Parts: sequence; structure tokens; C-alpha cells
Amino acid sequence: MPKKDDIKIFKGLENIYICETSISFIDGKEGKLVYRGIPVEVLAEKSTYEEVVFFLWFGHLPRKDELEEFEDEMKSARKLDEEMKDMIEKFKTSHPMDLLRTIVSIMGLSNSEKKKSDEEKALEIISKVPTAVAYHHRISMGEKPLEPLDELDHASNFYYMMTGRSPDEKISRIMNATLILHAEQGLNASTFSAIVISSTLSDLYSAITGAVGALKGPLHGGANEKVMELVEKIGKPENVESEIEKMIAQKHRIPGFGHRIYKTFDPRYRILKRYSKEMVRNDEDERYYRIVERMEEEVLKKLSGKGIFPNVDLYSGILYKFLGFDRRFYTAVFAVARLAGWIAHIFEYSKMNKIIRPCGYYVGPMDVEYKPLEERE
Amino acid sequence: MPKKDDIKIFKGLENIYICETSISFIDGKEGKLVYRGIPVEVLAEKSTYEEVVFFLWFGHLPRKDELEEFEDEMKSARKLDEEMKDMIEKFKTSHPMDLLRTIVSIMGLSNSEKKKSDEEKALEIISKVPTAVAYHHRISMGEKPLEPLDELDHASNFYYMMTGRSPDEKISRIMNATLILHAEQGLNASTFSAIVISSTLSDLYSAITGAVGALKGPLHGGANEKVMELVEKIGKPENVESEIEKMIAQKHRIPGFGHRIYKTFDPRYRILKRYSKEMVRNDEDERYYRIVERMEEEVLKKLSGKGIFPNVDLYSGILYKFLGFDRRFYTAVFAVARLAGWIAHIFEYSKMNKIIRPCGYYVGPMDVEYKPLEERE
Repeated sequence: MPKKDDIKIFKGLENIYICETSISFIDGKEGKLVYRGIPVEVLAEKSTYEEVVFFLWFGHLPRKDELEEFEDEMKSARKLDEEMKDMIEKFKTSHPMDLLRTIVSIMGLSNSEKKKSDEEKALEIISKVPTAVAYHHRISMGEKPLEPLDELDHASNFYYMMTGRSPDEKISRIMNATLILHAEQGLNASTFSAIVISSTLSDLYSAITGAVGALKGPLHGGANEKVMELVEKIGKPENVESEIEKMIAQKHRIPGFGHRIYKTFDPRYRILKRYSKEMVRNDEDERYYRIVERMEEEVLKKLSGKGIFPNVDLYSGILYKFLGFDRRFYTAVFAVARLAGWIAHIFEYSKMNKIIRPCGYYVGPMDVEYKPLEERE
Repeated sequence: MPKKDDIKIFKGLENIYICETSISFIDGKEGKLVYRGIPVEVLAEKSTYEEVVFFLWFGHLPRKDELEEFEDEMKSARKLDEEMKDMIEKFKTSHPMDLLRTIVSIMGLSNSEKKKSDEEKALEIISKVPTAVAYHHRISMGEKPLEPLDELDHASNFYYMMTGRSPDEKISRIMNATLILHAEQGLNASTFSAIVISSTLSDLYSAITGAVGALKGPLHGGANEKVMELVEKIGKPENVESEIEKMIAQKHRIPGFGHRIYKTFDPRYRILKRYSKEMVRNDEDERYYRIVERMEEEVLKKLSGKGIFPNVDLYSGILYKFLGFDRRFYTAVFAVARLAGWIAHIFEYSKMNKIIRPCGYYVGPMDVEYKPLEERE
């Protein structure tokens, strides 16, 4: 065992590089995020989710024929089989992330999976997961679940299956943009879980099941749900200042703010803020929007000097609310988007695979005697 | 972004310390493994699996009253509910590790889980998983599944539920020993997956689901199944030399040999070898044992100079065969044992929790133009 002075413990693996990557780059000081060299804002404005998935997985923007083929493959894999629907019905009162984790695991149960290539498995997962999430959403809202519509793109179809409404052009753009903005973000905890699992040469379903489980945590994807809980607790804009002051005084983490890497404005936050504002349709929406905006002002005033800025979760919660999504499903909507990045990293890491096995530094006792049961005190 | 010369990439996180730990210590040069200061051989010979679980989770050997209470709690949580049995029946043709991953995920679906403490959840998982694995084992062998027997200890009851036979004293000792030997092994890939997932403050079911998915991989828990495949391919002791020579020439990894940390004999291998020998009951067993022994001789002759020695997987496969377990279930038997270590590490890490988020070093292009679809070539 090395001496304690000779080793260093890398808590949380902060700033530890585990591989090279060509998938995305985050400049935390400048507040930049690029996917394979293209700023995420450009993709959010101009691209579709399908195109971004292709780009992240295969490394180049698809030609027209490539994109059409890819879109067709995704469409043809959207439908759930009856077994899956029965499972969702049976466990409909569960938390959406717990059910989603189970659904992905069940996808891996079919024996036929062994005959599928990893790309086919990836297409199955990314196409069916939104249908499963929306199916659960509809049932849990007491509404009839809907079958996917072939004439809609991936993001628009997801909106339709979630809400039962046909998206207009603006909503289609917002849906594509929000999925694109959440599609990829480097080696965060859920993506890293997927990499660790697949580094044993386990299968794609196992890796994604693990990633869903990790994203569920309130320090990760669960944060947008926490923002909404806080907004509802605050209740009105006038209460923001005192509540934020109290939270800071009590050293509580304020959901929607702060990030391991971004030490300035998260580029995704600006776009989501704009879309949230555009989606305000009534007085209640207005009140929610104002509360979040006031939270932003207060936190910036008090904590930006400490490098704490609004992050992607701050406005995504109210945007999802304005779109008509139930709060319990916010993290699952995040998962629907992030499948793109999880799978891109699994594909990339598998090409240079090395099993991931760090160490713990042993600080426990040595030479402990095994006393017989009767002699223990 | 730091310059490439200024950073180091820690592939596989080899020799990277992520935390302090008091759970186990491996001396790879001396071939030692201790659980909280007690050599694993001592525990394998004298202790029971329940006692080792208590020791790993709570840090001290239990007093008589503590152990009795813990054993009672484990016993009372062994039974599967009907829903779980139906799931196993429905997906009985699946790989046992895929089904186990799903079963653990389903355990997390019940809404009542939120009212349970982490210790209660841990007890539920560690008590029910062996029942689920054995239930699946019996059905897939075309046998009637069995209910747990309260008069048997954890390991003996697992043997009974797997095989339908009542274990004699020798088999009870072997079953306890094999579960104890596989109970804990530091921050291997499955344990680390569990830690990464729970570092987001996600729940225990999510963490264990991920760990099962990681253990499934052939570079990790899947190795004992691979040893048996190789043994069956080799067929008789006389074929060992040529097959091993061929594998070495083709630079194939030989399952059952080599380890990231042990650069000498794995202490667990000796015990499992002895038990395998004791369990030989007929000519076929003898033939299997002789093949593995010949593999050991050949590999040691040719590769021990390179630090490649027999590991825990070499004899565990044939031991499981001699005990009457079907080969497809070997990794699931490993999982039954390793639950102890997974949960011990989750408990320990949660006391000093920091979300785990490493970095990838971006080597992709920058300033890529977003060309409209029509202009792409």
C-alpha cells in the first residue's frame, strides 16, 4: 500500500481526464458548448433532433439521403409492443424515472436482442423511450395513451404523444431545441455510469439502464423537478427575495443554479429562458415566469461573485410546465433527450475500451482478530 | 481548454484513488485480501455470509444478539411477491443477468419504497435477490421453483432453492465460503458503477441495477461463464496444452487468469480450488477438474513471468457446476454474493458524497460550419 503522503485522492474525479473525446466541448469560463465543433445554439435554432443524434453518433452531419434513411429507421422503431404497454399500465403509479429504468431493462430481455447490432439496439432505445414516457404520462394524467404519428418528426411526435395536441411550427421548433440542448454534455454522472458499465463489455441496455438510474438523482437530472418544487413553494414573485436569502443563510443548494464546469452563464439557459417567455399564455404562466426571473436576479446579485450562475435546469422546468408536461415527468423528458449523448459516448469509448476500475485508499484497521461469536462485546 | 501536453489521461482510472475506504484492502503483490482487517480466508473458513454482510455494512463483527436480529430480518424478507414470480415466469428464457437487472429495477417501483430507510431497502435486495435467481434457475431447468426455508442460513437456503437438495454440513460451508469470497473486492467496475449512480443521490435500487448490468460484462463477472465455455471446448486434459498455446499465439485473453491488481496468486483461488476438488463426485467431474488444473499448469508455465496468475474465476465455474448450478447462472450467483460489497460501498461513499464527473479531453474539430442539408456532400 502506498504511503498516504504519496497519494492524492481525486474526489468526484473533478478535472480528471479519462479519455479523449470528439463529441462535445464545454468552455466553462466562456460559457460555450459545442457538439462536434458546432455551437449548441446554432443546432438548437437550425437543426432537428434526429440530425443531431446522427451527428453525435456518426461524427458528420448527414447528407439528405442519410438523414432520410435514419429518420425512417427511427420512425419504424417507435411503437411499443403490448408487453411494454401492460408493464406501464401495471406500474403506472411509480415514479417515471423508476419505470423508465425498468422499461429499458425489459427491452434488453428479449432473446432476439443478441442478433441485433449495437446500432440497431441504439435505434430501438432512442425511438421507443419517448413513446414509453409519453404513454406513462398520458395514463398517469388519466388520459388515453396515443400511438406515434409517422408524419411528425421525433420531437414533435413526442410532444403530440405527451399532450394529445398537434404542435404548431413554433412548438415544433421549441421541442426540437429543448431536446437538442439536453442531448449531450460531456462525461456527467449519467453518461459516465453508462461508460463504466459498458467498459466491462456489457450490453447497451445495461448501460442505458444505469444511466437512467443516475440521471434520476437530485444532484443531476432531478434538478429541474426541484426548481419547480421551489417555485411552487415560493408561490409569488414578492416572496422570492426572502426565500433565497433564507436558503443562502442556511447554506442550502438552490436548484437551477451552479455547475461543476460552467462558472458563467450556461449557453443553454439563455435559449430556454427565451422559449419559456414565448410560451407564457396566461396569468398563472406569467406568475411562474416572474418568480423564476426574480430568483435569477436575486441569486445573481448574491452569488455570481462566487461563480454561481443560472444553469440549464432553471428555465427548463417552467418551459415543460408551459408545454403541458406533468412535473413528475421532467427528468424523464431530460432522459429522452440525453439518450443521444449517452449512446454517442458508449460508441466512442468502446473503440478505445479499457475497463474502468479506480481505487479506494484503505484507511481501515489491519490484523483484526476474528473473535468467536460468544467472546464479542 | 488546457494544452494537451499539460494534461494526463488516466485510462481505466488505473491507480487513481477516488476516496478513502475502510471496507477492504487488496495487496496485489502479496496476494492478500482483507475485509475490514480480517483476511478473507479466515472469514471463508469460520464465518457465515450473514455475519460478513453485517461486518461489511456496519464496520464491526456483530454481537450474538445483533447477528440474530440481522438474520431474522434477512429471513423475513426472502419471499418474492406474486408479481415478481409472474415476471420471472414471463421472461424465463432471458439471460439470468438481464432478468436480475430487471427484477432489481422492479423492486424499486413500488411506491412504498419511499417510506423505507436505505437499510431496509438493502435488506430487501440482499434477501430477495437469491430467491429470484433460484426461482429463475429452477424454472429454466424445467423444475418446480421452491419457497425459501426459514431453518436454513442464507447461503444454505440459496443452495436448497437452486438445486432442491438439502445441503449437508460440507456443502453449507462451501456455499458460505463461496459467497463470502465473492462478497467484496474494492472499487471494481460494478461497485464503481453503483457508486457513480448513487453519487447523484439517486436511490439504492438504481445503483444496484447499474451494478448488475456492469457485472454482466465478460471483462468482469461474466468471466466464470467464459472459463466453463473454454473448458467444454477443450473437452479433455490432453487438449489443454495445444489450446492454450494457440490462444497465447493469437493473443487471446485466457478467461480465469490475470487481474488488474493481483500480480500473484489470488487468495480466493486457492480456496475455491480446494473446494472444487472436494466436490468431485464422478468421472465427468474428474475430467473437468483435470482440464482446469492442466490449464493452470500451462498458463503458469507460460505467463506467470508476465504477472498472469489464476484468478477467482478459474475454479468458481467448475465448483458451481459440481454444486449443480446451470452455467448461464454463474454470473448471477456472483451477483448474489457481491450485493454485500456493492451496498457496503454505497453506504460508505454516501457519508462523504461528492457527485462523480470526470472529463474527456476534446480532440474534435472546432468552428465547424452548419451547412444546410442541400449543400452537404
